Amino acid sequence: MTETLEHLIARHATTLDAAIDAIETRKNWSPFRDSPSSKFHAPGKPGAGKAAFETLLGKPFDLQQPGTIGQLGSEVSPFTRQPLGITYPQGDPATLIEAAQAAMPAWRKTASKARIALCLEMAERIYDRNFEMAHSVMHVAGQSYTQAFSGSGPNALDRGIEALAYAAKAMRDVSPSARWERTFGKEDVVLDKQYTLVPRGIGLVICCASFPTWNAYPAMFASLATGNPVIVKPHPIAILPMAIAVQECRRVLADFGCDPNLVTLAVDTLEHPVAQEFIDHPAVQIVDFTGSPRYGSHLERTLTGKLLFTETAGINSVVLESCEDLAETAKAIARATCLFSAQMCTSPQNIYVPRKGFTTATGPVSFDDVAQALVAAVDEIAEHPAMAAGIMGAVQAEPSCDIVRRLEKEAEGHRTAKVLRRPTPYEHPDFPDARTMTPLIVALPADNAALYAEEHFGPVMFIIAAESGDDAVEEATQLVREHGAISSYLYSTDEAFIARSLDAYTVSGMNLSINLHGAMWANFAAAYSDYHVTGLNPAGNACLADLAFVAGRFRIVQSRRPATREEVADAA
Amino acid sequence: MTETLEHLIARHATTLDAAIDAIETRKNWSPFRDSPSSKFHAPGKPGAGKAAFETLLGKPFDLQQPGTIGQLGSEVSPFTRQPLGITYPQGDPATLIEAAQAAMPAWRKTASKARIALCLEMAERIYDRNFEMAHSVMHVAGQSYTQAFSGSGPNALDRGIEALAYAAKAMRDVSPSARWERTFGKEDVVLDKQYTLVPRGIGLVICCASFPTWNAYPAMFASLATGNPVIVKPHPIAILPMAIAVQECRRVLADFGCDPNLVTLAVDTLEHPVAQEFIDHPAVQIVDFTGSPRYGSHLERTLTGKLLFTETAGINSVVLESCEDLAETAKAIARATCLFSAQMCTSPQNIYVPRKGFTTATGPVSFDDVAQALVAAVDEIAEHPAMAAGIMGAVQAEPSCDIVRRLEKEAEGHRTAKVLRRPTPYEHPDFPDARTMTPLIVALPADNAALYAEEHFGPVMFIIAAESGDDAVEEATQLVREHGAISSYLYSTDEAFIARSLDAYTVSGMNLSINLHGAMWANFAAAYSDYHVTGLNPAGNACLADLAFVAGRFRIVQSRRPATREEVADAA
Repeated sequence: MTETLEHLIARHATTLDAAIDAIETRKNWSPFRDSPSSKFHAPGKPGAGKAAFETLLGKPFDLQQPGTIGQLGSEVSPFTRQPLGITYPQGDPATLIEAAQAAMPAWRKTASKARIALCLEMAERIYDRNFEMAHSVMHVAGQSYTQAFSGSGPNALDRGIEALAYAAKAMRDVSPSARWERTFGKEDVVLDKQYTLVPRGIGLVICCASFPTWNAYPAMFASLATGNPVIVKPHPIAILPMAIAVQECRRVLADFGCDPNLVTLAVDTLEHPVAQEFIDHPAVQIVDFTGSPRYGSHLERTLTGKLLFTETAGINSVVLESCEDLAETAKAIARATCLFSAQMCTSPQNIYVPRKGFTTATGPVSFDDVAQALVAAVDEIAEHPAMAAGIMGAVQAEPSCDIVRRLEKEAEGHRTAKVLRRPTPYEHPDFPDARTMTPLIVALPADNAALYAEEHFGPVMFIIAAESGDDAVEEATQLVREHGAISSYLYSTDEAFIARSLDAYTVSGMNLSINLHGAMWANFAAAYSDYHVTGLNPAGNACLADLAFVAGRFRIVQSRRPATREEVADAA
Repeated sequence: MTETLEHLIARHATTLDAAIDAIETRKNWSPFRDSPSSKFHAPGKPGAGKAAFETLLGKPFDLQQPGTIGQLGSEVSPFTRQPLGITYPQGDPATLIEAAQAAMPAWRKTASKARIALCLEMAERIYDRNFEMAHSVMHVAGQSYTQAFSGSGPNALDRGIEALAYAAKAMRDVSPSARWERTFGKEDVVLDKQYTLVPRGIGLVICCASFPTWNAYPAMFASLATGNPVIVKPHPIAILPMAIAVQECRRVLADFGCDPNLVTLAVDTLEHPVAQEFIDHPAVQIVDFTGSPRYGSHLERTLTGKLLFTETAGINSVVLESCEDLAETAKAIARATCLFSAQMCTSPQNIYVPRKGFTTATGPVSFDDVAQALVAAVDEIAEHPAMAAGIMGAVQAEPSCDIVRRLEKEAEGHRTAKVLRRPTPYEHPDFPDARTMTPLIVALPADNAALYAEEHFGPVMFIIAAESGDDAVEEATQLVREHGAISSYLYSTDEAFIARSLDAYTVSGMNLSINLHGAMWANFAAAYSDYHVTGLNPAGNACLADLAFVAGRFRIVQSRRPATREEVADAA
């Protein structure tokens, strides 16, 4: 590789400028294509990507990182239920930390522009492997091929570039130097000052199982851009996507003469988790966590003296107060719940509907009409295997199926709850052994909160009969203050109701989508435009992305000294 | 008051613009005059300010805030050693919190521009009372009149306006709305998005005793500007300055129709501290702490789930490797240590000098020559009562004198330590009873670290014989990593030494002043230009001021909905 850092900076300059423009205008933009369609990619790409994935199977993954004390890996495809057979180097935590520390001084002195350009290059190279990545995400997380391609590919890389753009802005905001002049008494004091950006320390990036890349890239790029090495700790059941990403980051660093140990992979097992060992180490100064509310809130309650960014989960709700076209609205809600079998942090679980129904453009509908429309909309997907495969994908892990089956039994035991739809599997057209489960749908009155007042990680939809739209908003926002939420949805034809509800959602820190239907998924979050997680409720403290996500990852150290007479004369 | 918020915003617009320009260019700027000289102030001002202060003495302070359950106050002037006799309303914590919470919804909806303008008005009104403030600070903290006027007046307000400027920048960075358009399949999706800034919660501002206003204004203004109410908890021995500030803030709020309970005062006693009760309350979401390393590090170790900004203290050092003019350099160091009897967070305590001396422009000097020059420079101040009064002021509290007397005894007991100067009092020309103490100076070798390897809060200077300049820098930076430091000082004529030292200071997170002497105090920190505290060592995690100081005080909540056909047509 003979490209210089200067050339790299120049090559990525327009992308960075466009990203900064996008986060400021919040307009639609991406340097990538998030569709696998052959219209957008060279003819050999899809096949080569699949082949590259298959080449990885059944052997040790080559990372060439230091401190390897063994090989780990027991990923099982939710589509084939077969082990992937890939093992990853198990790094000795102390050695990985030492290697990161050793890489830090030179990285600190690398110009922030160069660090940003290197991250953009990493994003581009990871995108170049996106067909391979799509198969990798599919077979560890269970996402459908198209979703793995888009949501875990470009959409995730976009969140990373978004964080880079914020990091660039925050660092640009600090003048590198200044001439300061003031008269004290009769003396003119002229000082030259230098302001140096100093990274905080190693950033640990803990990834979740179901969407391994989406929060990882912003955390990695935000830390790297601001001068911090990163250690990536993937979830033990979904290592491969981040192993590919780490491999590509290390290659980019090496290609440009930087220390590849600025990015390493720390794998572990469910039985012997390793995260806390890194977290407790004084050299680790930044922790980005995505995963379970249990461990996330443990970190939120215990971690002090370090920067902590979390995204966990919450209870996402829909309040369907009224709508013009019931079928269309039911379809939007059903699609949002069905997408990736409700294993997304934006999947709606609780659907509030006024118990007396409401009036649509074509006449009044009862609560039962609404419930039936939702069941029909889910059936429409579930009963067409090709569609189900594209939307629902597979269920990543058996416990999610167990949860839903337990809820089905519980609901059957409740006098007031009614199982409207059983969580049957669908038959995947390509993978007959795929772990699939279509949503359980339960209708129940609002006084049955024990069933729905927590997040159930699996395909389940509760249709809750609320006294009114206002009551529904009150309960939904109350649940969010207690349990958190990432995405909330409101459907109403009543502008006054929308206006007063909006305020309740806002103070509860709930991002709200209003009356969304049609071709865009209601739970699609667009990087550069949609803020993800408010930090105001228990679903996490980190927003993807804002200035607060980046501003503390570096600090400013200054020096000052009198300007020499020659310097002052030159300036005059 | 008939001025509208619109008019207020317009009236302060140029100040805000200039402040933003100043923090970006880091140039010298202030809307205030920091000298009490009659050249800058109306003739009646100084006398009226003194009279206003005297009017406050011996009676209850009028704050008209809710929840008063008693009166507290036992401040004693370090200059007269007489009680001020002022009592302050003791607020019931629950009531103060409720009042702040009640004020929050309207404040959240007040435009950020208006909130910023109101804070600028508060600063202007507090400045208008600056002669009264100067006497108040003198008689609680012990600062000299001129220092109280400047350092606790305009210099502190400048830090507040600096924080406001950052808050303005961080909030402006968030677009209030956006039109987002993307084609999904064959459908053009057009969404209108709203991004709402939501404050985090009540900000508790804990002030220190010796410099009550300096860190308080930035914390107050940063929280208020971003929509959070503040409760100010002054140190029990130095309440008056913040009572005046809170009174003025409340008046400004009331004058413009805002709830004065956005700013309240929470007083307590040394025997029954109340801070923790506020800190533990879930409505308190931001804590700004200035004070002892002991309580500060307790907060740093225990507080989770809330924003915490700390400034505590550390061991500030001078490395005098070499200089051209010994007398001039000694004078600069002596003045920095003498200023406010070393009760500043920027006061240098440890002066490292190569044990073999160095060469000046007029020839070689030995370690003893340097030590004697430092003693002579301190004597020059201490032996001239008018100068001593202006520079050293008084010692705020007896424990500081006890510490120094204990160190004197300890030093006498050490075989290798040598007391070069005893901590005698000087006679204050205006206040014969003033608690004064001139610096103890002890010379000792570097192996006597037990004496100087911690911060001693009182007038003491250790002159440490180092093996070399490099050894001195190594030890000084090592102490900082362990104990923290806020300001470090380096004197050298060797550019290569300066360059390699600078790197060591930078990675240790030490702000460094190089070769400063002359009319400006070496430990003068200029708002808008000098970053104060790096956050990289144990002296605190908060920088005055940077984006990280403000960016997390508010969060962003978004909503989105399809644009109506009419809206889309209008835009086209």
